[in-house]
Formats: sequence, C-alpha cells, structure tokens
Amino acid sequence: MTAQSEPTANAAALSDLRALLGDAHVLIGADTDRFARDWTGKWRADPMAVVRPADTGQVSQVVKLAARHDLSVVPVGGNTGLVGGTANTGALMVSLERMTAIRDVRPQAGLAVVEAGAILSDIHTAVERHDMIFPLTFGARGSARVGGFLSTNAGGSNVVRHGPTRGLVLGLEVVLADGRVLDLMSELRKDNSGLDLRDLFIGAEGTLGIITAAVLRLTPKPRYHATAFVAVRDLPASLVLLRRLQTASDGAVEAFEYMPRNYMRELAKYRPDLRQPFDIHDHAVMIDMGGLSRPLDDVMETVLEQSVEAGEVLDAMIAQNEAQRAFIWEMREAAAEITFTRLPIVDNDVALPLDGVGPFIDRMRAHLKKIDEGADDLIVAHLGDGNVHLTVYPTRDDPAHLDAIREMIEGVTVDLGGSISAEHGIGLSKLRTMTRRKDPVALDVMRAIKQAMDPNNRMNPGKVIPDA
Amino acid sequence: MTAQSEPTANAAALSDLRALLGDAHVLIGADTDRFARDWTGKWRADPMAVVRPADTGQVSQVVKLAARHDLSVVPVGGNTGLVGGTANTGALMVSLERMTAIRDVRPQAGLAVVEAGAILSDIHTAVERHDMIFPLTFGARGSARVGGFLSTNAGGSNVVRHGPTRGLVLGLEVVLADGRVLDLMSELRKDNSGLDLRDLFIGAEGTLGIITAAVLRLTPKPRYHATAFVAVRDLPASLVLLRRLQTASDGAVEAFEYMPRNYMRELAKYRPDLRQPFDIHDHAVMIDMGGLSRPLDDVMETVLEQSVEAGEVLDAMIAQNEAQRAFIWEMREAAAEITFTRLPIVDNDVALPLDGVGPFIDRMRAHLKKIDEGADDLIVAHLGDGNVHLTVYPTRDDPAHLDAIREMIEGVTVDLGGSISAEHGIGLSKLRTMTRRKDPVALDVMRAIKQAMDPNNRMNPGKVIPDA
Repeated sequence: MTAQSEPTANAAALSDLRALLGDAHVLIGADTDRFARDWTGKWRADPMAVVRPADTGQVSQVVKLAARHDLSVVPVGGNTGLVGGTANTGALMVSLERMTAIRDVRPQAGLAVVEAGAILSDIHTAVERHDMIFPLTFGARGSARVGGFLSTNAGGSNVVRHGPTRGLVLGLEVVLADGRVLDLMSELRKDNSGLDLRDLFIGAEGTLGIITAAVLRLTPKPRYHATAFVAVRDLPASLVLLRRLQTASDGAVEAFEYMPRNYMRELAKYRPDLRQPFDIHDHAVMIDMGGLSRPLDDVMETVLEQSVEAGEVLDAMIAQNEAQRAFIWEMREAAAEITFTRLPIVDNDVALPLDGVGPFIDRMRAHLKKIDEGADDLIVAHLGDGNVHLTVYPTRDDPAHLDAIREMIEGVTVDLGGSISAEHGIGLSKLRTMTRRKDPVALDVMRAIKQAMDPNNRMNPGKVIPDA
Repeated sequence: MTAQSEPTANAAALSDLRALLGDAHVLIGADTDRFARDWTGKWRADPMAVVRPADTGQVSQVVKLAARHDLSVVPVGGNTGLVGGTANTGALMVSLERMTAIRDVRPQAGLAVVEAGAILSDIHTAVERHDMIFPLTFGARGSARVGGFLSTNAGGSNVVRHGPTRGLVLGLEVVLADGRVLDLMSELRKDNSGLDLRDLFIGAEGTLGIITAAVLRLTPKPRYHATAFVAVRDLPASLVLLRRLQTASDGAVEAFEYMPRNYMRELAKYRPDLRQPFDIHDHAVMIDMGGLSRPLDDVMETVLEQSVEAGEVLDAMIAQNEAQRAFIWEMREAAAEITFTRLPIVDNDVALPLDGVGPFIDRMRAHLKKIDEGADDLIVAHLGDGNVHLTVYPTRDDPAHLDAIREMIEGVTVDLGGSISAEHGIGLSKLRTMTRRKDPVALDVMRAIKQAMDPNNRMNPGKVIPDA
C-alpha cells in the first residue's frame, strides 16, 4: 500500500466498519485519544480508528473486515498498561468497552463468567454480593478490563497468596487472527484435553487474538483481616517476618509490600494528607492477612511482638478498624501517582528470588552512580513475590542514556536469576530487553507460534516478540 | 521408506546410537518390554529401540540423530500412564531413567531443581528432609518420573488444595524437535517475559519436545494432619461437608476422595487384609487435612459432629495415629490394583462441575443399562475437584461396543459441562473422543502449533491431536 492510497483505503474500511457497527461505534481523530494516549503521557499513537463491537460475533466480523482491508488489529481494554502494549499508529483498535456483562456468578462452583470488557472493580463488587472474591487486585482496578488484565497476565498485590492472573482463569473465548472464535470456556479445575491453549493467550498482549470472554476462579471472601504497617530493620529481617507470619497463619498473608525510605519520603511530599503513623525508617512493609476461620489480629500481634524482641521490627501500626485498614492500603496504592510525577523516567518491573531483592538494590545503585551520578530512584515492591518496581529518574533525557540505564538494570537482574518483566509485560518498552536477555531458542519458538497463528502478522504487530 | 529397507536403516541408526551412547544404553528386542508394555496389559508396542541418554546434551544428540534417520521419537518416563501415551511401534523411545538428579533443594526459595528422570517419591523424600513438600501425589509415585508427570499434567489426590501439576512448575528445560535446547528454567513466581511456552509443554505428552529438567515449586510441610474416613448420606451432603471443612480450616483440605459402595465392595473382595472400619454404605469419602499453625483434629471433630447432627454424616472414623492415617490412605490407593482385575474395560477419567458428579453417575447408569444391561461399573473420584474415575466392565469385548459405551459416557459428560479428560490425558485412547468432543477451532490451533514446532511430525506422532 502506498502512502497516497492510504486515505482512500481507510475511507473504504471506515465505511465498511460503520455499516457493520453503526457510526457511533467507529471513532476517529480526537475521539480516539482516550484509547491511544495513556495517562502517564509516555505512550501515544495515532490509530486509524477505534471500534467498539457489541459482542463476540461483531469482534469476529471486525477482524475479518480488517483482513480484507489489510489492517493491523490492536485490542484495547482500560488503557492502564505501562509498557506501550497498545500503541500502534495506523492500526484498527478494538475496544471491548461495550462488552461488560458479568454473565454469571456461581458461588457454589467458585466461578464467574464475564465478558472481556468488564471492569475489575465491577467484578469485585458483583462477586462480593455472593460472599466470594476474585483475588486479583491492583491500583488501576477501577479502569482495568478483563481482556487487558488477562492479556498482560497482571499481577498486583495479592499474588503472594493467590498467584498471578494465569492461575485464576478457568476458561477463555478468543477471536483468532482469521476471525474464527475459539471456545475454551471450561468451568473445570481439571481439564487435560489436548495442548494448553488457554495459557498461551494469557500474557500474549493481543498478539495471538482478542480475548472476548473468560471464566474466572473465585474464592470465599475472608471474614477476618489483620492489616499492619511495619518498620523493619532490613530486608533479611522482613523475610524472617514473612515466614513467621505464614507459619503462624497457615499462609494467610495476602499482601506483603515493601515501601522503603525513598518511597515514604515521596509519599510525604505528594500526599501530605496521608499522615504517616511514625517517622520514616529505611525499610517498611505493609502486611495484609485474610482468613475465614478465626480472627487474625492475635496472630499478627504475637508475631510482631516476637519480631520486635528479635530486633527485626522497629515500629508497627496494626489497623484497629476498617478505616485504618483503608488508610494503610492508600499509602501503598498511591504508588502510581507518586511515580509518574517527573519525566524522563526509566521504569522497571523486575522479579527476583526473594533473597535477591536486597542485593539487587545495592548493586543497581552502585552501578547507577557510575552511569549517572545525579540520578534518583524510587522503589516499591511486592516483596512476597520478589517483584520490584524500580523507577529511575535520570539527569538527562537522551535515548542512548536511558537505554544504558535499562541495560545495566537488566544485567543486575539476570545475574541474580531474575526476570526482566514480572507483571507489566513487554509491549514496546521491553522489546530490546527481550532481544538482549531472553533465551534465543525461546524467541524462535515464540516467532514460530506467532507465525502459525497469525501468518499475516495482523494482531498487535511489533509487540512482545522481537522481529516476529 | 519401504518395508524391505527398514532393517538396514534401523541397523545404521542403531550403530550411530551405540556410538553416541554406548552399547549398554541402546536396548532392543525383549529389553524394551519394560518400556513398551504397560502394567495393565492394555498397551503394547514394538519400538525400534529404547535409548537411555545420560544428560540433556545426549538427549539433544539423540533427537538430531533421529532426524537424520527419519525416526519418530517418543519420550518415556516411569511407564505408569493409562492412555497409551507412549505406545508407538517402530519409534525410537527415549528413556530418561539415567537422568535422576535432584540438583538442588532450596527451602527458603521454595523450589527444587530436578532432572526429568527423577522419581516422584524420591523428590518427596529429598524435600521432606528440608521440612518442605512437593504436593503432587498419586498411587504410582514410586515409579512416575518428572518428565512423565509434567508431560501429562498429572493430577492426583492433592489437587483440591494445591492445583494440578501445571501450577507447581516454575521452570522447564526442553529438547525441541530439531534437537535445540529450550531454556525456560525460571525460578520465579512472576515472570511475564513473552509468550507462555512452559505451559504448552506441560500436558503435551511429548508431542512438542522432550522435557529434560524442571524447577518445581515447594510448600512448607504440614506439621499437623487430620484424616478421616466418613460415610455420608449422599453426594450433596458430601459437598456440604466439604464446604464446612474448608470454612472451618481456611482451606486446609488436602484430599477429599469419594469411595462409593461398589468401590468398597471390590476393596473388601480383593483386599480383605484392609479391615474396613464400619459396614459398607452407599457413599463414603476419605478426608485429609494439613496445616502448619494448629492441630486440626478439633476442627475435624467439630465439623463431623455438626454434620452427624444434620443427618449428613452416617458414620466416621478419625485416624488417631500415623498408622491409622496410613490405613485410610491405603484403602484409597488400592484403586489401581482393584480396577484392572478384569478385562475388557472402558476406563474413563472425566471432570465435572462439583455438583455434576451425582447427576453424571445417575444418567450414565441409566444409559449403560440400555446399551449393555449386564455391564458393571466401578467408581472412585477426586470429589474435591469433580474428577471421576469411572471404569465400565462390559459383557462383551468388541471394539464397536466398547466405543459405543465410551461415546455415551462422553455425551453425558459434555452435557453436564464436563471435560472428557481430567488428568490422565489423551494419548491414543481418547483420540476419537477428541475428534468428537473438542472444539474444532481448538483442534485446528493445536495442529497449527504442532506443525510449527515439529514440522516433520517426529515427536510422539499420532498422539493427543487427531490428524495432526
């Protein structure tokens, strides 16, 4: 297709799309901004259009139509991703925002059947009415949609107890690159009927198809919580504390979040309304435990007392009521707004062995000093999973410098047995990292699968797999 | 290749294999029996040879050599499968039995690094020394090897608590169809670095490559157990009991196994040494709970008393010591020897929604009466997962009749939202079932992936995916 013929081709495609979906559901120009520009200001693209199909049948028709007009197709959910996973100029974006039905909640079977446009917090509300929870949660839950958090295999704060998204999904429905609908809507805990296709789409960031519906696994809603904010001596002490809590509660720890000095300092600066319970220490964690069978405050108190006596815990606040619990969570969930206060940034989302977090931070800072002495950093971590969100604020904004910092951080991560992406995914921002750090055989297998399932490279091209 | 040239071609391949591995590790003729014939007597094949490589490098060399000689390659573990997953006349079987190293056990990180030939019960022993468990367990644990239980995504008795094998694996090493080694040996809980290849190999039954090593997820060893054998009024009453136990213990139920009248009757017949604690009732379950933080006998007793008062539990024996606990488990684990006492059989391994197990049994028996009035059945179920092992003993042994029974059972299963394979896999025995019951689009995607990863259809051909 030549540059000249593009407008004509687009006009024909738009006309077909309008005939299929109605004018109101084919957005162009400024109307696409809320899908094509992200809230951090880091990612922007100019899609050819954003369409809003009403159901799986229409998604299928849209994908077939895109094939006829040789358009790339990029699904978009709540647009809360952090890696440029949907940024694609010229592509047809498919928003699932009209497909929000929570079709069924079956507490006895422990599952919910949802459409891919349903918002995470709406699912939380719907299932809690049945005394159940869908345990996945993170700051953007009020905007993030099913298709997005499945396509990125989202993590969040409860992974230490319930695992990442992949383990919370029983079934999927997917529109493939050729427009066919793949029905994997199993409602079962055990299902060994052939190759595991489900997990291939989870985390594929839309490169293999568009997720249109899912069966989510629910668990009973905890009756009791114990929530605390705790200053600890150092990172090893925090891991001793975590083990003590897990042993004393049979694994009831739902969140174990690291909030070190630089995080608490930025929190004090940007959110003075959140009056911190004690002076800022070098190391702090927030802890949430949940259970069905017994109150957990006693367990929390007993363990914290042991840890104070052992010199591992320096100060602690245990929530005495729901408001204090919400306050502790708010201190943690302010992370997103605190992080993106300045640009440029090099934001990282690495996973490490639990005991590798401390060495990672020390080594990273030593290297950073050499590359950019004035650079600042901000750290917050899902410590129970070894997942560190590290943001570096360099002193200058040139691409080579930013990439040098990124490459240094990758090196430290991989040397410690870590992964260069824990939960945010690859998108555009980590393509070079994938080339540098992922097993080349693994990259070849990914390319072969992509080629087999999307031979025209139509689905979210240029993402996740370098040189696909 | 013509029939005439086969011996010559085989001779050349055997000569190359002997040069590579040494004569002692290239088995032919009767020496292959223990790999090529299974203990049930149901599956037999005549492989061209069985080779026993010493390490991943040799596995890779063997696969490359097989390509040069145009041989099919079938990995074999402990030969404990039930679906003919390794039966393949003329193929080169690759036994991993020399690759048994448990390379590393790291209790603080909660993981073990193992070679694919390690035996499940050896892993249990090795990690228990560190006060950890690898929670996967089933009757054949003394023979089953890592490569086999990963390639079948094995289930077993503890899935209700810990999930199937897929959720217990952090990393994998795989030799691909072209002999290259794929390194996915992640030791992390969170790792979103590209398409999820790991889960594609788990459950693929060797059709995409040979698993040579794995990183397994461990959990702390329970300090307390409560184990009981309980007669229940009916299946719905047993589900009420399960929910009560889970709520009272925060999900400490590790096994919840259904053993109905016909199972207990066969047990009395074949294992009179196991003196049953009370008269045979229509419905019974064995329950095992495990915990770290508190003894669970009180929880078990309290809940059983409630259920007796509600008329749901008719009789119960709670193990008072380790010997009684072992006795209760033995009653359950005798299932394999009881099941295969007679031939012909139609053995099924279906998964159903929890509340579908009762209707499944009733409907299946009504249909069976019409097809084969004199047929008998035997049922034992992982009830906590909705996984029913149903064995039908038909009155006559002709293939069309056996397939009619199988097709009827599939129909009842699928009508109730179930899966035609819960944990045993597909192998050869359920290929026709796959064709009849699996979403045709899903079958096409499986074929496309198989073609992309094994274009010469060399790896365990003719299994899992019909007409691949």
